[in-house]
Amino acid sequence: MRNILLTMMYDGSCFHGWQVQNNAVSVQEVFQKALFTVFGKTEIKGCSRTDSGVHANMYCVSFHTDHRIPVGKIPAALNNYLPTSIAVMGAREMPDDFHARYSCVGKQYIYKIWNNDIRNPFLDKYALHYWYKLDISLMNEAASHFIGRHDFTSFCTLDKREKGDFHRTITDISVSASDDLVTITVQADGFLYNMVRIIVGTLLYVAQGKILPGEIPSIFEAENRSLAGPTAPAHGLYLNKVFYNDKDIYGSSLSK
Amino acid sequence: MRNILLTMMYDGSCFHGWQVQNNAVSVQEVFQKALFTVFGKTEIKGCSRTDSGVHANMYCVSFHTDHRIPVGKIPAALNNYLPTSIAVMGAREMPDDFHARYSCVGKQYIYKIWNNDIRNPFLDKYALHYWYKLDISLMNEAASHFIGRHDFTSFCTLDKREKGDFHRTITDISVSASDDLVTITVQADGFLYNMVRIIVGTLLYVAQGKILPGEIPSIFEAENRSLAGPTAPAHGLYLNKVFYNDKDIYGSSLSK
Repeated sequence: MRNILLTMMYDGSCFHGWQVQNNAVSVQEVFQKALFTVFGKTEIKGCSRTDSGVHANMYCVSFHTDHRIPVGKIPAALNNYLPTSIAVMGAREMPDDFHARYSCVGKQYIYKIWNNDIRNPFLDKYALHYWYKLDISLMNEAASHFIGRHDFTSFCTLDKREKGDFHRTITDISVSASDDLVTITVQADGFLYNMVRIIVGTLLYVAQGKILPGEIPSIFEAENRSLAGPTAPAHGLYLNKVFYNDKDIYGSSLSK
Repeated sequence: MRNILLTMMYDGSCFHGWQVQNNAVSVQEVFQKALFTVFGKTEIKGCSRTDSGVHANMYCVSFHTDHRIPVGKIPAALNNYLPTSIAVMGAREMPDDFHARYSCVGKQYIYKIWNNDIRNPFLDKYALHYWYKLDISLMNEAASHFIGRHDFTSFCTLDKREKGDFHRTITDISVSASDDLVTITVQADGFLYNMVRIIVGTLLYVAQGKILPGEIPSIFEAENRSLAGPTAPAHGLYLNKVFYNDKDIYGSSLSK
């Protein structure tokens, strides 16, 4: 059987997250219907769960099939049956043991903030609206303390699905501004539940002076969620890159 | 009475154009309700009609009022009663004879095109999706023929509201690309009905080789709508700047 890897984008404001749910429309449910139309019954593996409202600039899915459609024709074939809120960008054949989730060695998320006292109608569902002027260099000073391997107990929401190891390695984190749009980029070998959104909430607390950059190491040490900042809203968050074998499928590198 | 000028943005995908209609929700209708809540009964003057689906990065409205609220507090007061698809950005007091439409000496529109064979879920309502790779320099060569004062009969939809003078002066027109997002900017002392969308459709015909850049002058001369390109869809179009006294209210100049 062929093992196909698909990369896709989706507008998370149209869905209640990735994973199939009983009482709400998920990306997975809509995607599986389109896949069924083209490939017949297939079992798909998504690279991660994303929460309701979270967007994806790159999401990866893999599945086995006997269908002989050339890989180059798969994106258009699927996009034909998908709503415009989802787009398949690419397809390629992978070794038989490849798995979109278990083969993944890292991901990059970005978080967008509209930093202006007036809201932006075009970013209502696509960036957090934050009134007070952010001090980008102060936030970057705090962000630098996240680099490396840490126990992220203080920076995640406890989730029974986690296996108990709260160590993750952040390989890149930065805060940048382009006019009034601030982007926080976080890249790691893996992420705990709500980890990016709590890091973002903590960096916003730093900008407000509620947490000092130098206090981040002691928050790690305390292993206490209540010492970190709040969980930033979902609608500013984008899964941006997915890495397999130290590269994302477009060739950018996980390790800086 | 005070004469107040407001600048606002709106996401046109949420409305059936600016002007009040009997059977559909317009920006003007929603805006007037918010204005009534804050100022009581007022008659507003909008700077232009925008069609259904057309967006505004800057739209201007003026109205007379006896209300004594400081101008600096007007945006927040109105935004409180407006949906997130509309935002008032600024307010200022103007001379008594100022009129958002009749005092306007020019406008700038931009038109966004997502130029990639795969659609972009985030731009579905915010840019025209165009598959074939656009030749930006060829389009700019054609665009240069629009600069200056011309009779735009060939580049507008006949509209009984027009007074019969089809001359307009384009002060700036350019096509630029940033990755896969192509932006066409058109600035003029005034615009006829559908003029920007027909210019865009014509530049897309140039990119397809259906019209040569050198043919533009003869299309002007013919005064025949059927010789120009098609009317590009509304959802890529943004009213971007509005000029009063040779400057927009943020100080950029109409004449290049």
